[in-house]
Formats: sequence, C-alpha cells, structure tokens
Amino acid sequence: MKIRRSDRLVDMTRYLLAHPRTLISLTKFADQYESAKSSISEDLAILKRTFLQNGTGILETIPGAAGGAKFTPIMTEAEAENFVDGLVNEISDETRVLPGGYVYLSDLLGQPWILEKIGRLIATQYIKEPIDAVITAATKGVPVAQSVAEALNVPFVIARNDTKVTEGPTMSVNYVTGQAKRLEKMELSRRSLPMGSRVLIVDDFMKAGGTIRGMESLVREFEGTVAGVAVVVEGEVEHRVIDKYSALIHVNTDKEGGLLDVRAGNFKTEIYQDNSQLQQLTKK
Amino acid sequence: MKIRRSDRLVDMTRYLLAHPRTLISLTKFADQYESAKSSISEDLAILKRTFLQNGTGILETIPGAAGGAKFTPIMTEAEAENFVDGLVNEISDETRVLPGGYVYLSDLLGQPWILEKIGRLIATQYIKEPIDAVITAATKGVPVAQSVAEALNVPFVIARNDTKVTEGPTMSVNYVTGQAKRLEKMELSRRSLPMGSRVLIVDDFMKAGGTIRGMESLVREFEGTVAGVAVVVEGEVEHRVIDKYSALIHVNTDKEGGLLDVRAGNFKTEIYQDNSQLQQLTKK
Repeated sequence: MKIRRSDRLVDMTRYLLAHPRTLISLTKFADQYESAKSSISEDLAILKRTFLQNGTGILETIPGAAGGAKFTPIMTEAEAENFVDGLVNEISDETRVLPGGYVYLSDLLGQPWILEKIGRLIATQYIKEPIDAVITAATKGVPVAQSVAEALNVPFVIARNDTKVTEGPTMSVNYVTGQAKRLEKMELSRRSLPMGSRVLIVDDFMKAGGTIRGMESLVREFEGTVAGVAVVVEGEVEHRVIDKYSALIHVNTDKEGGLLDVRAGNFKTEIYQDNSQLQQLTKK
Repeated sequence: MKIRRSDRLVDMTRYLLAHPRTLISLTKFADQYESAKSSISEDLAILKRTFLQNGTGILETIPGAAGGAKFTPIMTEAEAENFVDGLVNEISDETRVLPGGYVYLSDLLGQPWILEKIGRLIATQYIKEPIDAVITAATKGVPVAQSVAEALNVPFVIARNDTKVTEGPTMSVNYVTGQAKRLEKMELSRRSLPMGSRVLIVDDFMKAGGTIRGMESLVREFEGTVAGVAVVVEGEVEHRVIDKYSALIHVNTDKEGGLLDVRAGNFKTEIYQDNSQLQQLTKK
C-alpha cells in the first residue's frame, strides 16, 4: 500500500526525532513507505526546510540512490537565551541556598521539559564532534546525563562514591575534592564503558571542580578521551581546579547562605560564539 | 506568512510529541501557523490517522472553535512483546548475576532508546489516569523514573537512603527491607513533591518489595495516593510484601549466583489485558 505524502511526513518526522545523529538510508524510508526514492528525497527537503526554519535541528541530506538523511537536534541562540533567562529567574530565590554554598535544583532537574532543553542545549556544542558516551557522578547528575545522552543518542554511565551499590567489577580512582581537599574515591562499573571511548563529562552543579577532575581521571583509567565538560550550574569559587568547561548558570553565594548573584554562565561563548560548524550549518 | 500544510504537519508532529498528555488549543496552532482553524482541524485528522496506524499514540481531537488536540503516547502490544523479548535475550546471561541475587542492568538502563521504550510502555498502563508525579529510589531507579515521567509529562522525584546529599528540609520514613528484615530510612526533599499528589512508584529492580513499600509510606507521609507500582525487573522470591504491580521481566537466580530463568513479567496482563480504556481508544 503506497502511503500519502502527508502521512509519510508525519511518520518521518517522528522517526528522525527519535533517532538523532544517525544516518538513515533513503532505501529504508522508500521500503517502509513503499514509495519511490525521488518522493522520499522531496519529503526530506520539506523536513530539512521546516526543521531549520523552526530551530528544531539540522537535517543533512546525502543525495543519490545510496544517500540518506541525518538529523542533529540543536537549540538556537535565541531559544537558549530565553531558556537560561527563565532558569536564572527561578534560581534567584534565597530559599534555594543550602549549607556549603550548594543550591537546591532538584525540583527543576525533575521536570522533563527542562531536562529536554538542557540536553539539547549542551548537545548543541558538540554538533559535529564524535562522542561515544556521557559520564556523570551519582546521584544528582544522572538526569542531566540522561538528557544529554538522549540528544546525542549515545549511552550514559554513572560514577559512584558509595560502594554499597552492587555493580559487579569496577574500576576506581582516588581524587581530591576541590575546596576541602579531602581524599575521595570514585568508581565506575567495568562493564558500563568500553575502553578508549570519547566521553563527555556532565554534572548538575560544580564548585571548585574536584568531582569533575575525578571523572577525568576515571575516563583516563578507561583509556578514554574527555570530549568536553558541561555543567548546569557553577558556583563562584576563588580557585577552580579545571579550566575548560561550559556552564549554563553562574551562582554566587556568601558564607552565611545568602544569594549574592545569579546570572547566565559562559554558555554563549562556549556553545555559540566559537562554534563555526554550528554557524555554518544554520546559515545554509 | 501563511504556512504550507506540509510544513505545518512536520512542526505539529514535533510539537505534539514534545507535549504529551496536554490539551493544545486549535487557536494556538491557528495563530502560530497563521492558518484557518478548519485547516488545522484537517491537519489534526491526518496526524490522528498516522499516529494510530503506526502505533505512535492516541491523538484525541475536540472539534469546534474552542477545541484542540491531546496526544498520548502508547506502545502497542506487538511492539511491547518484541521489545521485552529482546530484553529477556539480553538479560539471559550468567555473567549478569551479582551477589545477593541482583542482576546487572546498568548498561541497558544507560541506553536512551531502551529507556524511551520502557517509559512509553509503563505509561501505556496509565493512559487515562491522572498522575501528578513519578517517584523512585536513588540511584539506579532514576533513569527509569525520568523516562516514565517524560512519557507522562509530569515531574519525577528521588527518595534517598544516604543523608549525605544536601537537599534542604526532608520528610523521612523508616521501612523494613523485604528479605533481610533490616530497618532502613528513606527520605524525600519536602520541596520536591506537593502534598496530596497522585504518585506512580517505579524502580529498576524489585525483590521482596521492601523499597517499594518504603516509597508507599513516603507517599502517604506526603498525604498522597499511590497510582500504581511498575518495575523493569522483578526477582523471584518466596514472599513478596506488595501484591499489585507490573513487571516487564521476571528473573530467577539460585543462591550460588546462577541464572535459572529469565522470562517476560506480568506486563501483558497488567498493561494490556485489563486495560479497557486502551483497547477502546486503539480500536477507534
């Protein structure tokens, strides 16, 4: 049964959104919808135009009989600014400050629509970079890692401080916390990350960056490469132990638990200004 | 600028998939695409037919000028059987058995495409039920909770055993573990769950069900109602402390760490056989 163009467009949209950063062959679509490859190519041109106009993402199409399409979700700078402004507003609330200069974020990081935007925004920085896996530290980083992994369409893995949890054989590293300079241990299930992976490190909150540095050691222990570091919120500190990262939000608290300042982090520079690949792709 | 039907269909598909279980007014779409409501209604009829034919979900449309559309994602029984068969195959692996009769699942529960299917499958049981939030226990239940919450378009909250993590004021309960009968404590941030919510309890793995019962107490402490209990894998036990739940997979291990049996859980009965609302909606 041949399928109408309108029905094909609806189902191809669903399929491409559910399979980001994956090359789908023209043959697959042609077979599934029992349609000529020339019709599928016309459909893809419509999708490409609409996705670009609405800031949904980039649809790269490879023409010809052996061709196909690859959808990469992005967030436009305008949507990102608007979204981060909203978060800054939400977080600018004295009652969110917790002892130790931490900020309560769990309500925000338990909202699927916020997590989807965080994932798509962080993934926008790595639009053309190969990434094999996302890593985070248990527990509060997990929703962030899952969202970024969804947008990148790669697995995520969870490094743990508590050895209580049964995970089978693990690899562990010792690391020094950034501010208190305490020695801690962090471990990752051997089975969860293949050796030699290109890994993106993410977390919900970063202060001096000790936990991030612990994850960097862990990635090296798995003979992998750190593809980047991205956090949702960074706290103001005198000395940070890592230097290259992107943060959506910057928070400054005083020692008495007051909130001095909440503002957008460095994400505009890190994700948009230096991203020639993104600029090139969205200009087409 | 009036927008072509093809472009509208693509963007409406994206929008509805991203906003499940939410009534979107015809006016919103008509304004956004600068199109007549009658055209939007025709678009919605195409979407409804395509979503139903492909097993994507149910699009309920309310006709008339004040009408709108509500998209509810579902998984068909055929897709569910096929998906669970694949998981049973993956899990039927002696090397997954961990001390204490637990089964290593972290690699599977770190794959976005598997989590999307788990979320959509579990949400299918609650197609017409109002649910305000999803709850799980840290850490390994978190990805499951996030996926189910995405499909239901509600927030998720995380109950914790470790009091190390700063979360602000919490409410806590004591509970008895199901098998070892140890007394444990579980707590949830006061701020994360509004009082009186209808809550769906999910977890990655259930043995006797002590942790689930702990979460039931916690929900009651928040003056809420338990809307249901769903787990990905249940382990065979002599005596279970809860009786009503759905499980995708049933695992039986022996005391020496051998894998005796892996099979589909009771999800077909729980999710499909007794679900008159689902049957009615998908028959239309």
